[in-house]
Amino acid sequence: MGLFSKDIKTLNDLFVHTLRDIYYAERQIVKSLPEMIEKASDPGLKRGFKTHLDETQNHVARLEEVFRMHGAEAKGIDCPAIDGIIEEADDVAGEIADKEVLNAALASAAQAVEHYEIARYGTLIAWAKQLGRNECASVLQKNLDEEKAADRKLTELAEARLNFKAAS
Amino acid sequence: MGLFSKDIKTLNDLFVHTLRDIYYAERQIVKSLPEMIEKASDPGLKRGFKTHLDETQNHVARLEEVFRMHGAEAKGIDCPAIDGIIEEADDVAGEIADKEVLNAALASAAQAVEHYEIARYGTLIAWAKQLGRNECASVLQKNLDEEKAADRKLTELAEARLNFKAAS
Repeated sequence: MGLFSKDIKTLNDLFVHTLRDIYYAERQIVKSLPEMIEKASDPGLKRGFKTHLDETQNHVARLEEVFRMHGAEAKGIDCPAIDGIIEEADDVAGEIADKEVLNAALASAAQAVEHYEIARYGTLIAWAKQLGRNECASVLQKNLDEEKAADRKLTELAEARLNFKAAS
Repeated sequence: MGLFSKDIKTLNDLFVHTLRDIYYAERQIVKSLPEMIEKASDPGLKRGFKTHLDETQNHVARLEEVFRMHGAEAKGIDCPAIDGIIEEADDVAGEIADKEVLNAALASAAQAVEHYEIARYGTLIAWAKQLGRNECASVLQKNLDEEKAADRKLTELAEARLNFKAAS
């Protein structure tokens, strides 16, 4: 990232920039999920995080495929958004005394991560289509679909059990 | 926030903590939107941001109503997530040379903000209901509905015009 320079001149530049942003984000999530798996004491939540770690590793691989298809170098750039979202999750988790309350907070934190990714993939897919890169859009759509499914599963789990147990 | 202390002991504590997090976030957004209005050159995007600034001021007022209803002090706490999302928006905008590409990037950045809020309000509403505070849930639902509508409008605007103009 060139501070004080204007390196993004075209929608294609912005597309590649944002691809690098989400590539960094996905890799940070791969690093963070083992700690969330460790902290979760609800078996369904722990299992959900494990499944999502596998999915996230696959998202990284799909992004590398998109970089190849698009002829751009696969590299990450700093993404203060995901760093902030993960920092906030860690801060809150560190302040929680009760394990059931912690499960509810972990699910909520994971949903903030999912929503960041849902926003980014939605944008990237629209830009890929605008740039005539439908094959890139198709691969990105797979990641988006899995992020949305992960978010829905967390809502279901929270509403079916986690929130009730946290309130008991 | 008490570092090294475990101040969140119940779901109610977590609810109030998260309410303070989104209260801080909404107030940061009120501070950030005037700059986004200034940077946007597309008339529809500029108008959309202006409308959303009015809505966001109203969201702050509604959150104060929720604090009152719930008997908790209305105050913000640091929210590294929204700070990171806004920092990222500023960084990207500062790197863009072309005004049409900037419009596409601003819409995308605003959608990342909306999605953070959608995640947080979704959680807060579920927790309010679990805590038997349906009146708080109803007020929070109004904010959520407006965030979702703002996100949809940005998608429509981007796909109808902004992305096309950015690619031209």
